[in-house]
Parts: sequence; structure tokens; C-alpha cells
Amino acid sequence: MLTMQDAIGRLTAYWTDQGCLVVQPMNTEVGAGTLNPATFLRVLGPEPWRVVYVEPSVRPDDSRYGENPNRLQTHTQLQVILKPDPGNPQELYLGSLTALGIDVTAHDVRFVEDNWASPALGAWGLGWEVWLDGLEITQFTYFQQAGGLNLDPPSVEITYGIERIVMALQGVTHFKEIEYAEGVSYGEVFGQSEYEMSRYYLDDADVPANRRLLEIYAAEAQRLIDAGLPVPAHTYVLKCSQAFNVLDSRGAVSTADRAAEFARMRRLAGDVARLWQTRREELGHPLGVVTPLPPAAAEQEAPLGDEPRTLVFEIGTEEMPPAEARAARAQVLRELTERLAGTRLAHGDIRVHATPRRLIAVVAEVAAREDDHVRTVKGPKAAAPQQAVAGFARSQGVAVDSLRTADFGGVPHLVVERHEAGRAAPAVLGEVLAKVAGGLRSAKNMRWSDPNLSFTRPIRWLVALWGDWTVPFTVSALRAGRDTRVLRTAARPRISVASAETFMETLAINGVVADAEDRRELIVTGAQDLVWDTGRIDIAGESALIETITYLVEQPTPLLGTFDERYLELPAAVLTTVMRKHQRYLAVRDADGALLPLFVTVANGQVDVELVRAGNEAVLRARYEDAAFFYRADRQTPPAAMRERLRRLTFTDKLGSMADRADRIAALATSLVSDPSPTLLRAAELVKFDLGAQLVTEMTGLAGVMARDYALHAGESRAVAQAVYEAELPRHAGDELPAGEPGALLSLADRLDLVAGLAATVGLPTGSSDPFAVRRAVLGLIAVHRAHPALSGISLTAALATAAAAQPVDVPERVLADAGDFLARRLEQVLVEEGHPVDRVRAVLPHAGRPAFADLLLAQLGRLVAEREFLALAEAIQRARRIVPDGTAAAYDPALLKEPAEVTLHEAVRAVRAQPAPADLSGFTAVAGRITGPVRAFFDDVFVMADDPAVRAARLGLLACVRDLGADLLDWPRLRL
Amino acid sequence: MLTMQDAIGRLTAYWTDQGCLVVQPMNTEVGAGTLNPATFLRVLGPEPWRVVYVEPSVRPDDSRYGENPNRLQTHTQLQVILKPDPGNPQELYLGSLTALGIDVTAHDVRFVEDNWASPALGAWGLGWEVWLDGLEITQFTYFQQAGGLNLDPPSVEITYGIERIVMALQGVTHFKEIEYAEGVSYGEVFGQSEYEMSRYYLDDADVPANRRLLEIYAAEAQRLIDAGLPVPAHTYVLKCSQAFNVLDSRGAVSTADRAAEFARMRRLAGDVARLWQTRREELGHPLGVVTPLPPAAAEQEAPLGDEPRTLVFEIGTEEMPPAEARAARAQVLRELTERLAGTRLAHGDIRVHATPRRLIAVVAEVAAREDDHVRTVKGPKAAAPQQAVAGFARSQGVAVDSLRTADFGGVPHLVVERHEAGRAAPAVLGEVLAKVAGGLRSAKNMRWSDPNLSFTRPIRWLVALWGDWTVPFTVSALRAGRDTRVLRTAARPRISVASAETFMETLAINGVVADAEDRRELIVTGAQDLVWDTGRIDIAGESALIETITYLVEQPTPLLGTFDERYLELPAAVLTTVMRKHQRYLAVRDADGALLPLFVTVANGQVDVELVRAGNEAVLRARYEDAAFFYRADRQTPPAAMRERLRRLTFTDKLGSMADRADRIAALATSLVSDPSPTLLRAAELVKFDLGAQLVTEMTGLAGVMARDYALHAGESRAVAQAVYEAELPRHAGDELPAGEPGALLSLADRLDLVAGLAATVGLPTGSSDPFAVRRAVLGLIAVHRAHPALSGISLTAALATAAAAQPVDVPERVLADAGDFLARRLEQVLVEEGHPVDRVRAVLPHAGRPAFADLLLAQLGRLVAEREFLALAEAIQRARRIVPDGTAAAYDPALLKEPAEVTLHEAVRAVRAQPAPADLSGFTAVAGRITGPVRAFFDDVFVMADDPAVRAARLGLLACVRDLGADLLDWPRLRL
Repeated sequence: MLTMQDAIGRLTAYWTDQGCLVVQPMNTEVGAGTLNPATFLRVLGPEPWRVVYVEPSVRPDDSRYGENPNRLQTHTQLQVILKPDPGNPQELYLGSLTALGIDVTAHDVRFVEDNWASPALGAWGLGWEVWLDGLEITQFTYFQQAGGLNLDPPSVEITYGIERIVMALQGVTHFKEIEYAEGVSYGEVFGQSEYEMSRYYLDDADVPANRRLLEIYAAEAQRLIDAGLPVPAHTYVLKCSQAFNVLDSRGAVSTADRAAEFARMRRLAGDVARLWQTRREELGHPLGVVTPLPPAAAEQEAPLGDEPRTLVFEIGTEEMPPAEARAARAQVLRELTERLAGTRLAHGDIRVHATPRRLIAVVAEVAAREDDHVRTVKGPKAAAPQQAVAGFARSQGVAVDSLRTADFGGVPHLVVERHEAGRAAPAVLGEVLAKVAGGLRSAKNMRWSDPNLSFTRPIRWLVALWGDWTVPFTVSALRAGRDTRVLRTAARPRISVASAETFMETLAINGVVADAEDRRELIVTGAQDLVWDTGRIDIAGESALIETITYLVEQPTPLLGTFDERYLELPAAVLTTVMRKHQRYLAVRDADGALLPLFVTVANGQVDVELVRAGNEAVLRARYEDAAFFYRADRQTPPAAMRERLRRLTFTDKLGSMADRADRIAALATSLVSDPSPTLLRAAELVKFDLGAQLVTEMTGLAGVMARDYALHAGESRAVAQAVYEAELPRHAGDELPAGEPGALLSLADRLDLVAGLAATVGLPTGSSDPFAVRRAVLGLIAVHRAHPALSGISLTAALATAAAAQPVDVPERVLADAGDFLARRLEQVLVEEGHPVDRVRAVLPHAGRPAFADLLLAQLGRLVAEREFLALAEAIQRARRIVPDGTAAAYDPALLKEPAEVTLHEAVRAVRAQPAPADLSGFTAVAGRITGPVRAFFDDVFVMADDPAVRAARLGLLACVRDLGADLLDWPRLRL
Repeated sequence: MLTMQDAIGRLTAYWTDQGCLVVQPMNTEVGAGTLNPATFLRVLGPEPWRVVYVEPSVRPDDSRYGENPNRLQTHTQLQVILKPDPGNPQELYLGSLTALGIDVTAHDVRFVEDNWASPALGAWGLGWEVWLDGLEITQFTYFQQAGGLNLDPPSVEITYGIERIVMALQGVTHFKEIEYAEGVSYGEVFGQSEYEMSRYYLDDADVPANRRLLEIYAAEAQRLIDAGLPVPAHTYVLKCSQAFNVLDSRGAVSTADRAAEFARMRRLAGDVARLWQTRREELGHPLGVVTPLPPAAAEQEAPLGDEPRTLVFEIGTEEMPPAEARAARAQVLRELTERLAGTRLAHGDIRVHATPRRLIAVVAEVAAREDDHVRTVKGPKAAAPQQAVAGFARSQGVAVDSLRTADFGGVPHLVVERHEAGRAAPAVLGEVLAKVAGGLRSAKNMRWSDPNLSFTRPIRWLVALWGDWTVPFTVSALRAGRDTRVLRTAARPRISVASAETFMETLAINGVVADAEDRRELIVTGAQDLVWDTGRIDIAGESALIETITYLVEQPTPLLGTFDERYLELPAAVLTTVMRKHQRYLAVRDADGALLPLFVTVANGQVDVELVRAGNEAVLRARYEDAAFFYRADRQTPPAAMRERLRRLTFTDKLGSMADRADRIAALATSLVSDPSPTLLRAAELVKFDLGAQLVTEMTGLAGVMARDYALHAGESRAVAQAVYEAELPRHAGDELPAGEPGALLSLADRLDLVAGLAATVGLPTGSSDPFAVRRAVLGLIAVHRAHPALSGISLTAALATAAAAQPVDVPERVLADAGDFLARRLEQVLVEEGHPVDRVRAVLPHAGRPAFADLLLAQLGRLVAEREFLALAEAIQRARRIVPDGTAAAYDPALLKEPAEVTLHEAVRAVRAQPAPADLSGFTAVAGRITGPVRAFFDDVFVMADDPAVRAARLGLLACVRDLGADLLDWPRLRL
């Protein structure tokens, strides 16, 4: 059996063979190998660096007394840095798995999007988790920034989680069972330390002592920065980090502390990084300087024949995130279409395909040449002096007698007609494709070894074939050719393609299913086939997941796995969250929709099905075991104790802890109704308590679901349990809404608090940036309000003001107004999208604070606009509104009104105003309908603009009263009749 | 080329193959691999443990900004722990060198005594430095105690100094030039860190901050001990240690701090160790428990023949320290002689030989059997009742009629005569040899894998042959046999010996020169042969070194090496100190005694001479380069600045810093004479300043020598320079003495201060324990005083009181008296050893405080005892002394003296007393000689014990005056005439 120390030894030897230095772990506690100066400092600047080392990584937060099978306060990372990117780091990485004895052709090894950022270090990178049969075994990152500095060249960072890999290889289910060395288990060697250090981090570390340590370390780091010594300064930054983590795991970090500490660490780390970079420069870069890749040289192939041929253009990448692959596909289609349109090259259909590793454009019938073309060059007027004519001919390089005459706006000019031959397809295409490839951008771009390119992940190859010939072009260091790559695990992973026409077939033969629809079909039908006799898969419900999977594999190989039935005792949401979110597995249900102990995973390529199944089953087992562990632990924790833990959780640095937020939600929810029910009062006490649950800490998406479960288990009433669940609804667009009033009130209060606080501190969302999901909260407010007409009396804008008053920060009036406006805009959008005419929507928008009421008005409007009486009334009001100048008060002296028509109208108005104000449009129409005749008569008979100013004022005052009828119900002018 | 990382990899792989776990370096700064819990905690208790790991070891004190070629603030240790001792750890170790590609048969690999102790950890062990061609590459220790706990079983600790090994293998002379990995130098990788961390440790570390850290760490360690958590407590002890080291390297540790810190760390480490041991016991010893080696079973061989044969008895050990080997040889000779005498086995000469690895006893002509013997058992009186007689016969298992009668003090008793046949030699010898082997003890003993044995180093095999046959016996787990071991590097390191008679020859054939005299001869003649044409070796001067070398090798192979002539510019004492003390090389001189750039080293066995020569030359070069580095640095430091550094050096915890001590010496020296010379005054200001020199810090034996050199270099007068040199004299018995008075005064003051302070704090030496060399100091006082008759007026005892008054501690009267007595006893011993008759020595001993004066008196006595006049005078005084009762005052009323003889005596006495007190015996004899006649007449004529008490009193008073004559010069009663 491969022991853990063997595994470390083999990986070290493998990377040493790849030219890596071996250095030692950091001799001060660090949370990850990234913090070791062999990474953090060495990735800076232009010096090359290849290193491999082990890093025992201390995560005080992960302390579990050695009881949790998968979680340790110190786990063992093996860290590799390749600087610069060698161009084939994924292949090198796969080689390291082979060195561990892992048959990568039999297993399902996948690169699954995972971006990394450490704000405290001012560092980020893009990359993947590497999955081995569903198990995350490695973090693979193209390091882009550290200490706030751009990394040039970027480094490849590969971080192996040794315990996880070894557990998988040895098939053990608890880290203590790992065979560390022959005949010696991990538990035997490290068990006591794991327990005792957990005790220290969770229970026994002295908080004031560690606080003092933190201060001393930070001061020492600063002093050393001032002294220009980045190396010792860095060690003190690391000590800061550890002291902070200890305080954090002891629950001793206040909201203010955390924000301040992160800011300080970021600043110190940035100073250290800059200092190091300067110092290395002063030292003349002892390890040399990385030479950027030279630009590629294009090869020219002379095409033969003049027939139109197919164009194939492939951009080969490392695994793109699914969303980016789709976006890139659209971008290539658009760019290619537009740019081809800018040429005179005839062509047929353009189709673009995307897989995780490639974007392929296939253009049918691309002509061999552009059409020939006559270009007319305008010269002087035909009547110009001889000298000017000769000059023009000379400048065009033609004889004077070859000039022709053409009419320009009725004036004859001399012209030269240039017959330009269309260029050959390869030349034209080369220019186009180079621009398409070089212009690729994603939402978040990265750099790699290429000196000029930038994209979501590295572009590694380009194929461009027009018929049998390559289209000769280069983009930075890449040269287009005819070599494509198929699955990395194929016997021949690189293949030369004969012609554009055979390209897709070649890919297909080699297992790459280039078309997403084809892959989706393979996944859906494959999965359904696997389960047809036992259950079913909710294809519609899982469509987003299936879409993601479609872009995770190039050769979908669905396979069925099982898990122990006893896990079905866990809440279904737990099971599906793990399957869907963590593992991208499809859940399998029986005819009633109940979960079966089955799952479908989709491997990439022709793996050893039994092996991969077993691996995925083990991963799921471990995850469910973990979940079960937390679930048991949580169920032993009273809700009140969990609620208490919220004091330790920060909401945002300025808005206090989660407990503060829950308190505000409770107060607000109960204030929204005059007589809160016992259910609401109790649910308000508990609201959000499950954020203190271990399971929810692990899977935040289960907030609410677990609250209901734990509340019931703790003996709360079904109604209370439901209310704390519903308080979290809706969690996303289209999600379930609170059914009961207590849940609805809590849900509203939750979102009101969020919006009020964030609007004042972070600001309202603009564009696509909405880190705290304020937009979703506002949409939730609208949805919940609309779902509860009984609550339509609650004004969200008023409630927002109440929520604002309860924030720990000042929420200015202007911010509240903006937030109300933001709400109105969202409601407008929602209503319009539902198909309501824009004019009616705008007419009811003054009631955006009460969306349910707006709904009511819209519904009535829908009916009333078909009724003459309402139309006449509306027309009367609008007519009055049109004639009355702005600012005219709705008041007049009735004594000045003498004409019968005006007296009649006066009386009608008085009668309407004597009635109680109608609550809705129907009532209003019934009450105010009586004025339509008098208004019409008034306009027929009375000249408003009388010479006598007093009379004129009285008449306008009378009309202003008409104008104001129903002003509290509708924005009448918006209504188009 | 084997890179440094290759070397680490190979050693790790080698030890892994030997069943070692691989663990990671400690993730907090440690000064040595020993501190890693994988050593410090795991050596405790009965659990087995085999581990190998790298430990970057941080020694702030060794910071040199990366400038010194051999010294780093962080060097790389590779640490191996084997628990229990596998029985062949040295062989395993040699295997590891082979794994590194070192041909151990070609190189000179030696195990040179080096014991290890860390008082701060309550830890110690015995073992060796391992030398590779003279270079210390490994520390090899049998770990005996940790945290104050006895280790059972003991562990073998092997610590490789990776940089040194790799520098030797790569043949580079600066650590920065090490090829760390292919194409990358150590300096390129670690140079900046080495510089910056040196800056931190030497210049930039904040002292108050580190002081606070130390306190916090210690408090946290204590809290965790109280919480019963040894693992985190241990990490805090390590942090304490590092913080302390930082403070120390910043020169911020006061004398009081150091003592207190060491005590605290020792206490904390002890608590941690005890706690860990308890905790492991509570956990049921997860790694199991080491099974002690079972007792060996002896094999019986039936000897044939009755002729006397030779006995050979060999005790095979791992390399004994030279002094211990010699002592053990004497012990075996004594024990064997005595124990054989206790048997009835006839035998011839007993000879015992010792080498580093064996003790061999050869006993000639050992009879095949003991003589037969009749043993008489005494029974009841012959006249006893029948019943008693029968009972006796029955108890003896004989018939009543076989009882005989024998006379016991005139009373006939019944007896049984038992004819006991002498036992066969093997049986008798087995008992004797088992006791000799099992009883071996050295001054400092250790334990290893054997459950019952204890000796200076492990005993690994026993050979016991009587003629052709093995003597069957066992000692604990060892069984005597006929297999011996020769050089470890021999083709067949274990050899079976045919017979006792061929044993020595077998050893000789296999290269082992068993006899020390033979080895000495080989060394001396071999060395002389090597240098005969160029220079000479001072065999007499180097005799102690040659004696040591004799016990460092079994097959002496002298070889000649050279060093660069430019090093001859260094002071000769530096060169010889390095050669002699550090390297055990013989220096080579020209006819005038000046050093030549040559040395002789003595390898063990048939090494590759060129290889070993080159290796040793490289080592010497490095050492001289180091020395030259320090020498240059020191010469750039003014003496005053060096003197200032003494403030940082502790003398002892209670007696202040070295600067305090130098201040006291200066004050005392100048107070010893009434009018100190300018030379003395200046030398006193400088005295001991060179203890602040780097070279002296490295080689303390050069104190004084370097002071002279640096003082001259700094422009001090020759006299001053000589005086600061002579202040250190004599450094050992037989050493040079101060020639000038300033030097002598400083030397005396130095030793007086030492004796006064240590007598009060540590106590005067008893037995062989004299850690601070107080005995040597006292002998120095005596020697210096005697060498300077001009200073004979100085009383050492009075000066000791002056010195005592200047100590920072109280020196009680009793202590001073004891110190004076100690001085007197040493003087007595010295004088007697010089051949002075004991009575005369004792007679002058009241002047022990003025040894020069005692010398004068002794010299005079030597002459005077041949002179009648003196003898008569002495006799007269002694006669008076005999008759006068103790306590009689030397006073009388002359008026009561009437008899002529008494009047005559009275007048003679009065005349003598009227003279000035004579300064010495010659003068005294001249002056007091006149009383001899009157005394004789007095005793002839006067009856002292007159009846009249008044008269009697007067006569006794008169005699008392005679008695007291010269009492200030001699202790007259001691003198035997």
C-alpha cells in the first residue's frame, strides 16, 4: 500500500525531476503553503522559480478534536510553484498523479472551475479544483496577483491535499486510519497532537495573550518594513495571521477587529511584497529573469484549387468555467460573423461550438478568394487645368489617357478605376481569425505564459484550416496549425487534422463531442437509461445543473452510483445540496419524488466505470458522513445556543454581527403588524438561529431548511418551525414564497434590514455588481408582498425607513429615497415583464411601496379600461388636468360660480368629496363617476379663462378639484386611454 | 554532482528504508532538531519510535549576515531517532554515508567522543562527533535523559549537519557556493534570507517586544501545562527558547535574566515531559511498548584435554573516550586479577589491552580445572547425644559412621569432610568474566538497548575463549562467543576466532593493533618518517595529544597534510590550537621551532591516503579561514570596544558579567601594591578584554594570547600587551608563569577574585568535581606568588579577604577561612610533591598565604637543619614548649626570679626580645641563638615546678617567652629534629 509518507516522497521526487527545488515547510505556523515565502515572495518579480515543498497547514477553525473524519486543525499540503507557466502544467500535473500510481486513463480526473482569492494577502488567481472521481484532491491556480502586485510572469500554483489523496488511494474513511508509514497509522502518530491542538484552538488559548501577540507581531512587522527587511517582516505578517486565526477560532474576533485586522494584514503584506520586489531588483535578480515567449512565426502554405471549402477554426484552451465557455461561444460567433462581413469573402453558415477545452467555429463554403472589385478614385474636375490632371494621373501611377470621367453630384470628375483582385481566402481568414482569437475576453481574465494574451483560462493551441490547408496566422506566441488535442488521457492526445471538412469527424472519432446539444442529449438520455427501472431524474428541475455538466465534460459518460440508505434519514435538502452543489451529481427519485439512494455522475471520457463509481461513492459517503456528523452535533445543540453563536458571526464590518441583524429583523417583523401572533413572536426570537449550526456553516444554502428541522426537533411548534424556514424565502428567483403570515413578515423584515443597511454602507447595486444580493432582496420584498394581499397595507417604503432607523449606521434621507426609487424601478420591471401595459404599470407605480396594492389596482384597471364609465371619468380628470396650470390649488369661492354648468359641476364635486375616500379604483369609479357629465357640460358651456381674474381663479380651482380626484390611487397622466 | 536537496532526499530515503517515519520540520523556530516534538517528546516513555526529518535550525547567535563561509543563522539538520537502540546504529549510520555516495572504506570515518547536554531542557546523552576526514559531519548521541526524566529505553539520536556534509562532498569553501539543486546555488536561494534574518537577530529585533513575547509565551506554556496539554505547551516552550535566543543575540540578556530564564525553561520542559509521559500512559501507549532484549542463553561447549591453555576475554564496545578506555583497561586488570585470585584456578600472567573499541584480557596458562579441595563441615561436639549426631549426619546426607572427629579449640567435634573436585576452567571463568564484564563502569555511564548494562558506551560483543573453546557465559542480553569484530570498513567486519592462542594474531592480521604502546609507536615513528626531510615533531611537547590519538584509532595511519603558507601569518597559538584541540593534528616545526605549513593526522585503517589528506586539508583550510576571518574582524575592533562586549558575557549567574569580574580584577590588582605602575594601571583597564574577541569566543584557550596580539596591534606598549597576556597565566599545570610584576599582579587578582566568588556561591571543590577550576586557580596563585619573591610581602589570604569584600555576594568569614585552609592544603601538597620533608613543610605552612615566603623559610630550613646552632635553638624552643602548659601567657614578674640560671635566661630572653623581630630564620637564628645555653642551664639548674605558685608562674612565664620565640616564623612543634 502507498503510505502517506511514500506519497509525499513520490510527489517530491516527481517535481524534483521536473526541475523543482525542494525547500522546507515554514518554521512558523501558516494556514497554507501559499504563505511560505517560497511562494508568497517568490512569485513576485521576474525571476524564474520552480519549487516543491510540504506545508503542514494550520487552520485553527478546522479543529475538531480529531473526531471529524475529514477535518483537521493541521493538514498536510504539498505545494508546487512553476514560474513561469511551462505551457503544459496540467499535463505535468497528470504526470504527478501517475507517479502516485493513479491510472489517469481509468479514473475520472477533471478540472473544475475554482477561483482563489485572499483579500488579506492582496492575492488572487484563477484555476480549478482537480477532481479525482469526484474528490477534490488539488487546487490548481494561475497566480495573478500577490501583495496587491500584478505577477509578471504569473506562476502556476499546485496544492495537493495529501490526507485526502491518501485516504482515497488507501480507501479509508477517517484520517486517523491513514497508513502513514508501514504499519503506523496517522492517528497513532498525530492523534494526540490533533486533539490537544484542537483543545488549544477551541478552548484553551488565552485570548488576551493572543491579542497581545497579535499587536506585538504587527508592530514588529511594521518596524521591519520600515527597516527595509522584507524577509523577517514577512515572518511577522505570518505570525499576525496565525494569532488572528487563533483569536477567531476562540470566537474572540469582533466585527470591528476583523475588518481592521484584514486591512492591516493586507497593508503589511502589500508593503512586504513591494519591498521584496525592490530588494530583488537591487540585488540584480540573483536567479535571473524570465524571458517572455517570443512571437510565433507563421508558416505559409500555398493553397491549390479555387473551389469553396469549409473553414474550421479551433481555439484550444484549458478548462473554461461553463458560463465562460458559453459566453465565449457567443463572442466568437458574433466576432467572426461581423469580421467576415467586413471582408469580401463569400461564405455559408457559421456555426460555433464550445466544450470546456475548445471553441470551434465551422464556416461552410468559404470562397477561395474574395470577389474582384473595382475601386474608383476621384480626381479633379474634368474641367481642371491640364497640369492638375497630369498631377492626378502621376499620383495614381497611371497614364493621363487611362483616366475616365464620372459624375459626382452632377459635376463630372476625372477618376481612376482600380480593378482589385480579391485576396486568397487564407490571407483574408488569417487576419480575421487572429483578431477573433486575440480579442477573446471573459468576465474575469487571467494571464499565463503568453506575453500578450488574456482570457478566462490559458489558450494553448489554435487550429485554422481552410479545406486542406492551414490558414497561416499567429497570435502572440501561438501559431495556428492543423494539430488539435483530444482527451488528455487518449493514447495520442495530439492529433493532426487532414482537412477542415474532416475536422469534426476527427474529433468525434477521438471521443470529443464538440456540440453542447449533443453532449446534453448524451447526459440526459444516458442518465435516464441508467435509472429507468428504478427511478427517474427530474430533467426539468435539474436543467441548470445539466447545463453546467454539459460544459464540464467533452465526452460525457454518465454512471450510476449508490449511497447507503441510512443517509436518507438526513433532510432531503442536505442530500441534494451535496449532490448538486458540491458534486454536480443528478439526484434520483422515485415515482412520488422521494429521493432514492442513487445518484448519477457524468465522467469525462472512457473511464473504468467500476473504479470511478467506487471513487464517487466514497466521496459522497464522506460528504454525507460529514453532514451526518454535523447534523447529529447540531441536533444536540438547543436553538438558543445556536442563536447565541450568531454573536461570533460578522454580517458586515459596519452592520454588526449576525445576531445584531437577527435582533433587528425580529423587532422589525413584529412592528409591521399591530398585534403580532404568538407564532410570529416566537419565530422572531429564533429567526436565523441556524446560521449558528455547523451544517449551515458548511452549506449556507441550507439556511432556513435546517432551521425548520432543528426547531421541530427542539420541540418548537410546526407553525414556528415553518415560519423560521419561510423567513429565508425566497432564496432565488422563482423560489418558493412564504405561505404563512409570520414567515412572510420575517421574510420582509429580513430583506428590509438588508436593503436599508447595505444601501447606506455599500450602496445600491449598479450594473452587474451586487455582491450582497441587494437586487435579489428587493425582488424578494416585492414577491412576498404581492403574495400576501392581506399584508398589502404594509408600506415597504415606510418599513424601510423603520429598518433604516434601527441600523447601527446613519441612513440618510437621500439613501432612503434612492432605495424607494430602486424598489419602484424593480417593480416596474417585474410588472412590465409580466405583460402589463407600461402605461398602467406607471400609473400604479406611486404604490410601489405596496406592491400588492399595485396589483389590485392593475387588476381593476384591466377590467375598468373596458368600461365606458371609467373611461369617461378618466378622460374628465385628464381633461381637467391638462387645462389647470401647475401649482393651482384645489380651492375656490363657490360664490363666484354663477353659470349653471359650473354650479352643477361644483355640486357634483362637492358630492364626490363628501363621500369617504374610495379605497380602490372600483369604488372610486362608483363614487366619482357622477362628475363625468358635469365636467363635459362645463367644458361645453363655460369659458374658463374669464376676463374677471376672480372668476377665472374660481373656475380653475373647481377644475383643480376635479384634477385631484383619485390622485391618491393613480398617476392619471401616465394612463394612456 | 550530489546537490544538497539530493543529499537530503537520499538520507531520507535511506532511513525510511530502515523503518523510519518521515515527519516535517517544526512549524515554529527551533534551535535544533532535538527540540522538535518528534524527538523531545517521543524519546520519552516506553513506546518505540523511528523517525527521520529535516530541521532548519535557527541559531540567532550564529548570524553573520551570510558573510562567514561556515556559519549561518539557519542551518539544516537532518535528524534521525532510533528508539530503541537497534544494536547496530553505527553500522546503520555508516550505511547512510554509503547512501550519500561516500566510500567509507576509502575515507577516514571516526567516532570522536562528544557528550551532549542541554541544561535548559534537562537533557543529556553520551556519544560522538562523527568525523569524515577530520570534518565533523554528524552528532551521534545515546539520549539518556530529557525533561529531567530518565529515558527507558534510551534513544539513538543522529544529527547530520547537511551544509557541512554537502560542502565537503562538493568541495566548496563557502556555504553560498553549495549547489543546492541542479544549477542553483545555496546563496541564490537563501542568501537574502540569511542576510536579512542576520540583520534581525543582530541589529533590528526589538528588545522590549521580544521580552514581552518571552513572557507571554512562558505564561501560555504554564497555562497549558496546568490544563494538561503537553503538545501545545511544548510549542510555547520552544517559542520561549527562540525569544530568549533573539534577546541573547541582541545582547539584551542580563546575568540575572539568563539564570532565571534557564531555570524557567528547565522547569517548563520538565513539566511538559512529565505530562506527556502521563498522557501517553493514559492513552495506553498507542505505538506499543518496547520489549526489553531477553537475557542471552549461554551455549555449552564441552572442552577436551587437560592442558593449561590461554584465556582471551574481549569486551567489544563502541568507541570509548580515550580517558575511559585507559581507565577501563585498569579496571579490567584489577577486577580480573582479584576475581581469579578468588578461584582455585591456576593461571599465568594477566595482560590487558585497550583500543577505542575493545578491552582485551589475555591470561596465560590457565589450568583446565581448579585444584581439588577438601571442605570440612563442623558438626556437634563429639560428646553430643546420639540424636544430635544422627540429625547432623542426616542433614549432611551421609551415614553416621562416615563422620570423623576434629579438634576445634581443644574441643573434639564431629565433622564431615567433603572432597570437592575442582570445577572445569570454563565454568569457573564464566562466572568470573560475567562479573568483570557486568561490573564495568566509567566515570560517566550510559544505557543503551541492554536492559541491565551501563557503561561509558555500549558493549556490543563478548569474546571469551579458553584455548579452543568458548567460555560459556552471558551478561544480560550478551552471550560470550568466539566472534570478534575488526575495523567496520573491513571486507569481513566480523570474524570467528579459532582459539585463544591465535586471537591476538587474528586481530593483528585484520589490522587491529590491540596494544596501545604498539599504536603509539606506529604513530610516533610514522609521523616522524613523514616529516623527516622537512621538519620535526615535538614528541615530548605533544605527548598528551599523542596519547589521545593512540586511543582514537585501532590501526594508526599517519599521513601528512599541508596548508597554505599565508595562514602562517596568524598567531602560532591560533594555528596550534586549531590543530591540537579541534583536529587532533600534530604540528610540524622547523629546526628553530617555528611552525611549518604542514600537519600530521592519524587516520584509522587503510584509507585512501590522497582522499583523506585532501579532506583534512580542506577542513583545516576552512578552520583557518574562519580564524582568519575572526582575526581580521577582531583587529578592526578597538580593545575598548571589545572590553565593552564583556558586559554581555555572564561569568556566573550570581557573580555578574565578565565585565564586572574584569573590573574587580583591575581594582584588586592595583590595590595589591602601594604604588601601581602605569603599565599595571593600563593593563588593568584592559584585562580580559579579548574575551570579547570573536576568535577568543571561538577558542577560549587563546585568551591572553590574543589579548597581547590585539593590544599590540592597537598600539598599546609592549609591556602592557605582555601584562594582559600574563594575566591569564598559568592556564594549566606546568604552564608558563607571568614574568613581569604587572602580569603577576593581574594573574593573582584574577585568581583571587575567582576563588573568593566561587567559594561563596558554588563552594570549594570536593573530590573530582571542580567545574569552575577553582583548584587550578589556587595552584596558579601559589605558583605565581612563588615565582615572584618580590611580591612575597603580599598575603594571599589577606588579599582573598579584599577580593571577597568586592564580590556582589556576601562571603562569610567561615568561607574565607575554608578557602585559606584549602590554599594551605594545596601548598602543602605542592611542597611535599617537590620533595620537601613533610615536617618542614608543615612547619612553614602558617605562611601558606605567602608561598614565596614559605619557600624562603624552607630554603633556610634546608640549610639550618645541618647547623648545630639552629638545632640547639630549635631544641631549646621545643623543650620550653613541651613543659609550658597550653594557654600560659608569655609574661612574668622578673622580680620573682632569683636563681642564677633563671636570671641568666631572663636576661637572654630580654636581650633577644629587645632586638627587632627577625624577618626570616637566618636572622632569627643569629638573634635568638644566644638563648640556647641559658635554656639548657635553666633546665639543668632550676626546678620549674616550684612549690611557691608565684615563683612557678614566673618560671613558666619565662619559658613561655622562650616558647614564643620565632613563633611567627615557624610552627616549631611540626619540625622533627
